[in-house]
Parts: sequence; structure tokens; C-alpha cells
Amino acid sequence: MNNILENALKKIQPSAKEIDELYALFARIKKYLLDKHGIKSQLMGSVAKNTFIKDNRDLDIFLFFDKSVSFDELEKKVLAIGKDAFVHFGGTYEVDYASHPYTKGHINGCEVEIVPCYKLKSIKEMISAVDRTPFHTKYIRKNLEVSQRKDVLLLKQFLKTIGCYGSDLKTRGFAGYLCELLVIKYSTFEGVLKKFSGLERNTLLCLQNQRNNIKKFDAPLIFLDPVDKNRNVAASLSIDALLKAKYYSQKYLEKPDGIYFEPGAFRKKTSSKKSLESLLKNRNFYCIYFKRPDLIEDILFPQLERFKNSLEKYILSKGFALNNSFFDCCEDKKACIIGFDFAVEELSYFVHKNGPDLFSHDDKTQGFLNKHKNVYFSNGHYACFEKRKITHAYDLLVSLKKKEVQKQIAIPKGIEKNLNREFVILNGKNLLDYVNKGKISKNVVCRNIAGGKTITAN
Amino acid sequence: MNNILENALKKIQPSAKEIDELYALFARIKKYLLDKHGIKSQLMGSVAKNTFIKDNRDLDIFLFFDKSVSFDELEKKVLAIGKDAFVHFGGTYEVDYASHPYTKGHINGCEVEIVPCYKLKSIKEMISAVDRTPFHTKYIRKNLEVSQRKDVLLLKQFLKTIGCYGSDLKTRGFAGYLCELLVIKYSTFEGVLKKFSGLERNTLLCLQNQRNNIKKFDAPLIFLDPVDKNRNVAASLSIDALLKAKYYSQKYLEKPDGIYFEPGAFRKKTSSKKSLESLLKNRNFYCIYFKRPDLIEDILFPQLERFKNSLEKYILSKGFALNNSFFDCCEDKKACIIGFDFAVEELSYFVHKNGPDLFSHDDKTQGFLNKHKNVYFSNGHYACFEKRKITHAYDLLVSLKKKEVQKQIAIPKGIEKNLNREFVILNGKNLLDYVNKGKISKNVVCRNIAGGKTITAN
Repeated sequence: MNNILENALKKIQPSAKEIDELYALFARIKKYLLDKHGIKSQLMGSVAKNTFIKDNRDLDIFLFFDKSVSFDELEKKVLAIGKDAFVHFGGTYEVDYASHPYTKGHINGCEVEIVPCYKLKSIKEMISAVDRTPFHTKYIRKNLEVSQRKDVLLLKQFLKTIGCYGSDLKTRGFAGYLCELLVIKYSTFEGVLKKFSGLERNTLLCLQNQRNNIKKFDAPLIFLDPVDKNRNVAASLSIDALLKAKYYSQKYLEKPDGIYFEPGAFRKKTSSKKSLESLLKNRNFYCIYFKRPDLIEDILFPQLERFKNSLEKYILSKGFALNNSFFDCCEDKKACIIGFDFAVEELSYFVHKNGPDLFSHDDKTQGFLNKHKNVYFSNGHYACFEKRKITHAYDLLVSLKKKEVQKQIAIPKGIEKNLNREFVILNGKNLLDYVNKGKISKNVVCRNIAGGKTITAN
Repeated sequence: MNNILENALKKIQPSAKEIDELYALFARIKKYLLDKHGIKSQLMGSVAKNTFIKDNRDLDIFLFFDKSVSFDELEKKVLAIGKDAFVHFGGTYEVDYASHPYTKGHINGCEVEIVPCYKLKSIKEMISAVDRTPFHTKYIRKNLEVSQRKDVLLLKQFLKTIGCYGSDLKTRGFAGYLCELLVIKYSTFEGVLKKFSGLERNTLLCLQNQRNNIKKFDAPLIFLDPVDKNRNVAASLSIDALLKAKYYSQKYLEKPDGIYFEPGAFRKKTSSKKSLESLLKNRNFYCIYFKRPDLIEDILFPQLERFKNSLEKYILSKGFALNNSFFDCCEDKKACIIGFDFAVEELSYFVHKNGPDLFSHDDKTQGFLNKHKNVYFSNGHYACFEKRKITHAYDLLVSLKKKEVQKQIAIPKGIEKNLNREFVILNGKNLLDYVNKGKISKNVVCRNIAGGKTITAN
């Protein structure tokens, strides 16, 4: 291992003391849960696998229930037990939702999650997605060499730095488990980067002899889960995260540099007010601003993405053209914005409409002739000019306030309610006002407006 | 034959006196040509076939040369003989060009053409296109019943009224010979209209058993020439002329009306100044105006069309969109205009450009990264914003004055020279000025601007 990696490791490897403290804390919680509630618990996640980055102290505590316990009862019990434990240890907590509701919070400055799962002999008995986690933990503990933990840390930090670590639906990057499997498969951090840098279409990765009888997966990268061959571990990985990983892997291998392990090194610097103005200049930029629905990110972000996509479709169907579009949440979590950089902002009042051609059926032709005025002949077609109702991008977005327009667009449930409560269309000037008033963070706008982060210099 | 057709015929059928006078004039010319020049001549065209419309007195006189006469000699001789004949009969003439140069002019108020062709036994010996004409004339005289001449007159006048009679390259309508063949095939005027009104795709018409071993023709209508099976008589017929014929045939059959035989009945009425203004309102209309090249229409119009098409391609390639485009000549024959009704008149300053994707070859990716600044990731592609040089339709058209832009466009030879001599880009306002100054006729603009003539009411 070279100097760069050794130096990086010094910064990201947890100390023996940190590890001891974490295990001691878990031991106390485990004992309490068993003594007070008579329930067995186990540590999962990166701490259990010893693949966590310094100061990223997440205790994922799984409570094991018997299969005879109903789903409803399990949910009730895990919340009651979790709340009691957080109170007992003087922590703070909230209820979150994944496959189940569960409690998460802080105890002694450490992030703690108390999650339920069923006691299973085999993955085939799996009831909900979290039931897979104990099998994952077991698999990694058994198959990842102790010496490879360092490589997992380096890979995780590398992906973090370039902005694609984490399988949450905002990041849509690499899950910790995927990083571990990649290191098992390609031995070292650099082995994984070499694989990334030469990535080919339809790459199917796996660890055991799983190539037979596999499901068809539609994803840019497929890594079969060694504990469940019907699952692609890289399913939530976005194609841009993969492209990013490929690009920076090539860059790193060309010229290794410690900067790839420095948190925040690749984060876009906060632009000054002037640079936001210059970003907006010469752009036909408009955005929709509305109060953020009270949903967790893993539910909100896919909804925002679907909403953005259906708006995009609507905009294009009306004859406009887009350079770029994005969705994001303001950093204070109070509002969402969906932004559109129009390539064509204004359309002509008239639009040429082609009708049936010379050889169309008579009823089709007659229908067109009855429906339209000012029909003319054009390249073998009956044709006419239609008047557009909306010719300007701003008016098109404003029209979204109308119920009958909303009916034409797929608006996800969680967004629909809030959209009609408060919903503003901003042009570039109004956007600057909102930024100046602190309603939208400059950061959010800047990082999205030019098509995401640029990777080469100005 | 019903009243409507009988009334129409009264107006379009030449009188016996008119026919006698024409034949007498031809007899005098024929005698002179034989006596003075020792050359045999024959009458061709609609007068020879007795299918000419009253007052449309064209004497097409063909001079027959022996095949031993060279092409050059033939050209010289026919011009010398023609000029002499026009002078002898006190007519006026000019030299025109078709397959050969030839003289045409007026004698006693009658249009006379003196055209050379070779004496041939069979069409297979044909040297130039005019050699076919004697075979056509012979075929029609033999196969068109005397009673059907009336139907030919009605069909010709019907097509004239709706604006698609004549195979010249401006009209691109129905040739007289095609009208005659259609009447032979479908017996009567109404028989032809019935065929038109139910026209189907890939219609192949012929009169003899010619369906074997025929060439593939790419045309909206195919009518095999009975004297030359390798020729489509309807080759120059435009798809819009055919569509027009179909539309008005249906209209006529639904409700027969004498108006279909009144010259000019369907010509767009001259719009008042106000209506031109209202036509231009709410349109992004621009046109190119240049001195008309000194070319005959059959050469000029195809060149203008090709030029218009290549400009259209160029405009679309730059991201703009068009509702309509046209070319035309001003009625005083001094200028040409090419008009564009833009559906998108202004584009954004930046344009999103997709580059190689995640799985592209490394050299392709590297090339893109080297070439472009501010590259970002977008849907699995490397992408960047490019700055547009030209964002407005007017500027795009003005840029056509540049030599390097002209190189990217196919400019037909006959136009290129004149284009660079005088060449103006007009927006709607300037166009109105030009119309007020009489440089462009209002008619020309009005009949083209809204996508050609409209066929249904406002």
C-alpha cells in the first residue's frame, strides 16, 4: 500500500479506542434489552463488520422476533422497546420508516437505530427486506479478509468524496454492502477502481457460481447478492453515479492523489451572489417552488423525480425544449424546487398541424376537414394552422395551477396536496429575490442549474 | 351530359370557325416551310388532337429531320428556319430552350412554336424527349373517341380552375397528354373524377397490358406511357396537385357546380393591406429577397425549390423550428423570395450537448473531455453546455451572407451568382415596406404565407 493510501487511512480508520467504546456501548444496550424486555439483539451494519469510517458511528441494533409474532405486533413492540431504550440511556429519538417503523436517535453522541427483524434459518423465509441484513452481515464477516477492511474504508471514502456513496434515494450511489462485495471480488481498493475504469455494457458481477437461472435485471450494473440470487445489490445505483465512479477511477489511476479521500474536496464551492447572477444570465431559467411535503427523503425524492419527469414530458409535448431540469430540496427542509432551463422559451402563436394524407380513409379526412378551419394542402397532407393557447414558458408553468392541467400530469400523491397549498413560479429575477430573502439557498440553485456539477474546468 | 357540363362546354369549346382559321394558318406555314426550306412539318399538341380550349390557340409545329442530321446542325437549322418563318409571316418571336433551342412567338394573334425532331420509325430510336411527341399525338388521334374530346376539355378546364393544370415545373400539375389518357381510360370527365376521388396508395395506371417488366417508379401517381413503357406520364405531378385534384373531385361529385369551370374562380382574392398585416401579426415571418436570375421558369423553379429545401434543412439543424416555408417569384419577374414562418424564432444562449455515454470507448470519451469545458454527468452521458453563436432567426438568415455559411448549404448554380449580388433579409415590418414600395406584390406574399391557399373558410 502506497503513501497516499496510508496517509488517507490514518484519517479514516477508527482508533482501537473508538471501536472499544462502541462495542462497550452496544454491550450495555444489548444487556438492557435482554434484561428488561427479554429480547435478543445483535449488532449489524458497518460497525458489526468493522468497515466503518472514523466518526461515522452508527449502531444498527437488530431485535430478533419469532416468526409467530404478527407483523402488527412486531411493529408495536419494536417501537415500545426502542422508545424505552432511548429514554433509559438518556438519548433522543424519532420514529422513522423503512420496511417497518422503527426508532432511531442518539445515545452518547452515537447514532443508534433499533430495528426489528424475524429470526430466520434461511433467506428463503424472508418476510421483509430488513430480514436480509443479518445474512449480509454474516456473509461479510465470513468472507471479507481482515486485511481487506482497509480497502473497504478507502473505497467508501473515495466514493463519498466524489459524491456517490450511499444507497439512499437521494444519492442513489453505492451501498456499504456493495463496497464490501466489490472488495471481496477485486481484492483491493485499486482492484475495484481498475474494474470501474474499464466498465463495459451489461456487466454482470457475482461471487459464487450464480450465473445459471438468474433473473433478468435492467440496471447499468448488476451485482448478484450472494445471499439472494434474485436480488441485484446495485439496483438503486443510478447511471450517473456509476459514470462518476468510472470517470474518477480513471482519473485516480492516472494520477493518484490524497484529495480523493478528503471529505468535501469535490463539493462545489458556494458561489458568490454574482456568480449566481452570471449563471442565470443568458439562460431561460424558471422554477416551481412549493412547501416541502412532510415525507422522509427515501419517499420524497423518488416522488419528486417522477413529478419532474412528468412535467418535463408535458413541457416537451407543448413544443418547448429543455436544456436541463432538476429537482431538489432547500437545505432548511422547508421547500422543494423543480427547475427548468428552457432551450426554447417562446413559441410562435400559430403552429402548423399536419392532418390526414392524400391516401387516408375518407372518414378520417372528413373528420379533419370538419374540425379545422383554414385547411390547406401541404406535402400531400391536409394541414392547418392551430392557435397555441400558451406561447411562453412562464405561462406554461403558471398554467399548472389549473386543476384541468394538473389532470394531464402524473402528480405523485405526497406532492399533490402541498402543491396546491403553496406553489410559486419563479423566473430568474424572482429566484434571485428568493435567494436574497433566504427562502432558497444559493447552494441548491448553483449546484443544479448548470446541469449538475461540472467535472472539468471553466 | 348534364346542364352544368353543357353550359361549361359552351364557354370552353372552340368554334368551328376558330378551328378552321387555325388549320388554315398552319396550312400556309406548312406550305411555306416546304417550298422555301424543303422541310416537312406536322401539327402537334392539343390543336392537332382537337383537345384545345377556346382561345388557347397554340400551334406546335414540328419540323422533321433525318437521323443523319447531327444534333448541332439540327439546332442551327431549326433556329434559322424558325426565324425566317416568323419574319415571313410578320410575327414576333424569341428563342426558348427545352430539349433543344427553338423559336416561339406570335403570328396573327396565335401562339406558334417551331420545334425540331427526328423522323423515327419507332420510339426506341428516340434521341431527345421531343421525339416522343409525334408518337403521343398519333396515339391520341387514334384512341380518343371524337365524343370524348368534350370530356378532355372539361377535365382540362376543371384542373385549370383549381390550379393544377400544366406540367411546367412551376405548376407541377397535370399535362394535357395525361388528361387525354385519363379520359381514354375512364371514358368520361366524371369517370376521371370518380377515380381521383377514391385514389389509393401506389396506384399504377396503364392502358395496355403493360404490367409486366415495368420499371419501379417513385411517384404519388403512375400512368405508364402507352408509347413508352419506361416512362411515367405523371412523373412531374406534385403530390399536392394530386391531393388538390382528389379534394375538389370529391367536392364536385358531392355537389356539381359550374363554378369549377370558371377561370379564376378559385384564385385567392387580392388581400387588402390590412389583411396582409393581420396575416403577419402573431407570426415570426422572415424572408430572403433577391434579384431574379435570368432563367426560364422550368429551370428556375426547381432550383428555387432545392434552395428552399436546403435552407430549411440548415435552419432546422441549428435548432429552430418552422411552421411553413415557400419560394416564389414576384409577378414583375424582377425578384425571388423565399419565406420562412418560424415556429421557434429565438433559442437559448446555451445548448445542452450530449457526449459519449458510460460505456463508450475511452478514446471517444477522452476526445470529448479534451474538446469541451464544463463537462458534467447527465443520464449516463458526459455532457456539456455549448454556447450558440446565433440565437435569433433573423441573425441566422443574415449569416447566410457569409461565404463560410454558404458553403454549408447547397445553393443551385443559377441562384448563387444573383444571391451574392443583391440579397436582403426582411422581417414582417420590412416586408410591408417592400410591398408598399411595390417591390414585392402583396398577392405573392398573401397566397404563400399561410401555408398556401386555404381550402376551407375562415
